[in-house]
Amino acid sequence: MSKQNHRNKILAAGLAVFHEHGFNGSGVQDVVSFAGVPKGSFYNHFKSKEALGLEVLDAYWEAGTEGRDVLRASGVPPLKRIDRHLTLFGYDKNGCLVGNFSAELAGIDEIRYRLAELYETWIDEVAICIREGQLDGTIRDDDKAANLAEFVVEGIEGAKLKAKIDQDPGAVNRYRKSIRLFLQSR
Amino acid sequence: MSKQNHRNKILAAGLAVFHEHGFNGSGVQDVVSFAGVPKGSFYNHFKSKEALGLEVLDAYWEAGTEGRDVLRASGVPPLKRIDRHLTLFGYDKNGCLVGNFSAELAGIDEIRYRLAELYETWIDEVAICIREGQLDGTIRDDDKAANLAEFVVEGIEGAKLKAKIDQDPGAVNRYRKSIRLFLQSR
Repeated sequence: MSKQNHRNKILAAGLAVFHEHGFNGSGVQDVVSFAGVPKGSFYNHFKSKEALGLEVLDAYWEAGTEGRDVLRASGVPPLKRIDRHLTLFGYDKNGCLVGNFSAELAGIDEIRYRLAELYETWIDEVAICIREGQLDGTIRDDDKAANLAEFVVEGIEGAKLKAKIDQDPGAVNRYRKSIRLFLQSR
Repeated sequence: MSKQNHRNKILAAGLAVFHEHGFNGSGVQDVVSFAGVPKGSFYNHFKSKEALGLEVLDAYWEAGTEGRDVLRASGVPPLKRIDRHLTLFGYDKNGCLVGNFSAELAGIDEIRYRLAELYETWIDEVAICIREGQLDGTIRDDDKAANLAEFVVEGIEGAKLKAKIDQDPGAVNRYRKSIRLFLQSR
């Protein structure tokens, strides 16, 4: 196996293991076992478990690109785009890695700063879509798009936590319906 | 020190340590060091770290009784009661223990079942208040009180996660304003 292959396997294993068992709930040994590479290989590629955590977060974010792209789908009404976005970021039995890391790793500054950047980017992307809906009259305009967007993003994190506890997608589906009620102009 | 004293000290230490560093981010040694009791004492009182985790969750919930009682404050308009409730469950630099445990410990069935019960009770308490507001015309009635209440509870969890990442109460304060916009009749 090439070195790059080992690195990729460790990264993919880190994503799977940290998402299912939590960052502090799993060790480097769990990651290399899952990856099927020798433990010594880990430190050739990552300077620490925290360094892998940061790359895992970026890989998770990257994997969500398509789910954020729907927010800019031209020809689709803004409320519909938001609903599609939330559907694509819907139920996962392990919850959302961004939410999980927020709960677990806010004490590690490097990870906290990265999470803050991801939230900011995410909220901005939702806000641009909401702003379009405010301009075409389909979305309420009694608050700034940025505030409404923050509420949408925080809500999906909360709903995904709840769905994880229920081990059932119901909470996420009900949340999508509530967000539509919240956002639509009356 | 009496045995009961040791037990209480371990429970209080568990709450402080698990809340700040996470359940998997801290060990029994951290808890007994914080409590100032010998490690041997731990297993005289708790059969496992998970057993302590469950009692810590109950103690945290118990400590929030006053913050939930405001939901039933007679003579106070329902929207105002919800705002007070969310203010009392507001910013904490360590986030909400219910949310943190949801993110971290859903894989431990005993803790997951307890979390599910707590969410259900919490949502019911908010729903009763919302129902009152629907009956007096101050809260929207285009969805069931139970659904609106679930949205409120999930949202505060999401907002507390975000505030923990920001290390700033702003997200929680903006969330309270958004919930008022969401709930009020128009």
